[in-house]
Amino acid sequence: MQRSFVPVAAESHFPIQNLPFGVFSTAERPEPRIGVRIGDFVLDLREMEHRGFFRDVFGDEHVLCKRSLNKFMGRGREAWRAVRRTLTQLLSEDCATLRDDAALRAAVLVPAETVRMHLPCEIGDYTDFYSSREHATNVGKMFRGEANALLPNWTWLPVGYHGRSSSIGVSPQEIRRPLGQSNPKDEPTPQFGPSRMMDFELEVGALIGPGNAQGEPIPVGAALDHVFGLVLVNDWSARDIQKWEYVPLGPFLAKNFATTISPWVVPMEALAPFACAGPKQEPEPLAYLRDASAAPTFDIRLEAQLRTPTMREWDVICRTNFRNLYWSIAQQVAHHTVGGCNLRPGDLLASGTISGAAADSYGSLLELAWRGERPLTLSNGEKRASLQDGDELTLSGWCDGVGYRVGFGECSGRITPALSG
Amino acid sequence: MQRSFVPVAAESHFPIQNLPFGVFSTAERPEPRIGVRIGDFVLDLREMEHRGFFRDVFGDEHVLCKRSLNKFMGRGREAWRAVRRTLTQLLSEDCATLRDDAALRAAVLVPAETVRMHLPCEIGDYTDFYSSREHATNVGKMFRGEANALLPNWTWLPVGYHGRSSSIGVSPQEIRRPLGQSNPKDEPTPQFGPSRMMDFELEVGALIGPGNAQGEPIPVGAALDHVFGLVLVNDWSARDIQKWEYVPLGPFLAKNFATTISPWVVPMEALAPFACAGPKQEPEPLAYLRDASAAPTFDIRLEAQLRTPTMREWDVICRTNFRNLYWSIAQQVAHHTVGGCNLRPGDLLASGTISGAAADSYGSLLELAWRGERPLTLSNGEKRASLQDGDELTLSGWCDGVGYRVGFGECSGRITPALSG
Repeated sequence: MQRSFVPVAAESHFPIQNLPFGVFSTAERPEPRIGVRIGDFVLDLREMEHRGFFRDVFGDEHVLCKRSLNKFMGRGREAWRAVRRTLTQLLSEDCATLRDDAALRAAVLVPAETVRMHLPCEIGDYTDFYSSREHATNVGKMFRGEANALLPNWTWLPVGYHGRSSSIGVSPQEIRRPLGQSNPKDEPTPQFGPSRMMDFELEVGALIGPGNAQGEPIPVGAALDHVFGLVLVNDWSARDIQKWEYVPLGPFLAKNFATTISPWVVPMEALAPFACAGPKQEPEPLAYLRDASAAPTFDIRLEAQLRTPTMREWDVICRTNFRNLYWSIAQQVAHHTVGGCNLRPGDLLASGTISGAAADSYGSLLELAWRGERPLTLSNGEKRASLQDGDELTLSGWCDGVGYRVGFGECSGRITPALSG
Repeated sequence: MQRSFVPVAAESHFPIQNLPFGVFSTAERPEPRIGVRIGDFVLDLREMEHRGFFRDVFGDEHVLCKRSLNKFMGRGREAWRAVRRTLTQLLSEDCATLRDDAALRAAVLVPAETVRMHLPCEIGDYTDFYSSREHATNVGKMFRGEANALLPNWTWLPVGYHGRSSSIGVSPQEIRRPLGQSNPKDEPTPQFGPSRMMDFELEVGALIGPGNAQGEPIPVGAALDHVFGLVLVNDWSARDIQKWEYVPLGPFLAKNFATTISPWVVPMEALAPFACAGPKQEPEPLAYLRDASAAPTFDIRLEAQLRTPTMREWDVICRTNFRNLYWSIAQQVAHHTVGGCNLRPGDLLASGTISGAAADSYGSLLELAWRGERPLTLSNGEKRASLQDGDELTLSGWCDGVGYRVGFGECSGRITPALSG
């Protein structure tokens, strides 16, 4: 097994097999810059590019000493692979270049505990899919009843909608409870005030690399060439606002107050060893959605943990897996572009809440507490059917390799009180 | 009445009372730059700023010699007013500075027929409202039947959803007919192929000036301070795709293949003389949506014109008015931000299709031809229930002053054939 000269703990999410990209700054140097995570360190790619380490890939052009990953993302797979090869070589235990040069190491390796993370890229457009059959069925039962739970289009296309880009932030975030309208009892006049049904949604998001020209669809077989990497996504939701507002044009204020992503973008190449089969698709998808790959998805273990203000430790409240998703990322990309919609580098395509079949694998409190009918009992005896002020919610995810983990780190947020309405 | 030394025809949309902002380039100088339209000329603000004409507003800072309006938009009302005062002065018939300096005029006044227009700003997020009661009722009747036409939330909040930013283009545009799924007869298996129900939507969009911090709502009384100006918007729609896909999360591929806006942003100050009352709002809106203004909307005449490949002249197929909208721009801004969603300079808030009460005032073919039941008969005898390949559709809009018009110019597009599916 390949190892780095940088020490990496066995349970670390960031061994040399991962090498995720992010954007960081430090108190001494507050300008955001691109880095790669290895163990408890961040390799500063601005410094590395200035020192000429990527000249064989980019010549004299500057691609990595930027404030965001967008330009690098737009370069495509061959450039990503070349940079990854260089990084893997430079960080390996067998390579003296960095390992034996204390001055260079001091200049380019930054302790992770000293960095502040920023959004990894400018996200021009954010799309949220709805690709977990279990989640769509659960929510459908609650919002529309058993008979209309899974709507007729669901098994034919990856249902999705456009989300809000401006309010996407990077973990850890403080999430102010939103004010809004709701009408829980279908009364003649709706209520206005702080949401009483704050929720999380455990999702994984794909960040787009090279885009497509407007009017030119991306075929499903080429779709993964357009994906730079994955992050965790918490699509915070106000369920009471959602229920009142969402017909007929979909969720709006119930979702657009905040969305949190994890800071480290795990490259598709790091995930490749964990490619696996997804659920059987029945009925067979239409031709433009037919994915010939035998391993169109990825085996990524996912967890949600909750900690209330009175708890010391975290409770794991959900354990699920990315492979539970019915529609693959390639199918989402192919569907998104089939009518000609153009994707741009940095666009975020989130999966939708990832629920499994088991009741402890649901990726939202709405489902875990079944709309309040079965509140969760936490380890300290508290009950939760929705998030309360001060509650912290953390998503994590990782792939289990033999002797190592390729992980996403954490995606965290804490609920703060609403403005006085 | 104030006049410019630049000749302006009586029916022109661009007299000195308007002075809309846009971004243009020319064949000789292809770099996009900011200009202001006056009659048949464009005043080059890059050249003007380089010559120091806005030093009293911005000092030595460069705000107007940019590739987009975003920075200027973010500066707010006082800066916009100061620039407008300077422009009005310099372009008036009484001011010798430009009028009597042929060399300066040659350097800064560009014939409009020689310019290519670009998007006026980077549109970070695009929101589409649904604020015409007549449109919402018409579409509701067709999609859900008479009983569920106007849903219970509609009279309580400005229903809206997030649209796609990447595919917004500037007029004139070629619009490729999208491929997609539809299921017109609710059969067990949906169809795939070119949309057969291509439509336009006549809308007006507000471009945001200064935004708000995440978590900090904009009060309805201050909302118009956050609006830089208005443009025409054609939210091209594929109705057959929409009907199949839109439940439960709203329109997606039916809309995201293309949206066209008019190139000249009409400043709010130019629209102020045309402020007027809107429809009576019953029930009374909740407090955060209560607009104390006696003239919360604007009297803007709007038209849609159609020309098929066999027609020489255009047919006006819709005449409506912005004042028909039930929810005002200020109410849209207040609602959008009440839960904490942050707006950014350049964001687009479109009104939704603007239909009136009369059958020839509906702002979409879906309504004008009542879902195909009453196809339009054009002046050359052709019939249309949806847009066919080669059809051109142009929106226009203007306010009638005494002896002048403040107009938006045109927002045009032509349908081109689908890719072979």
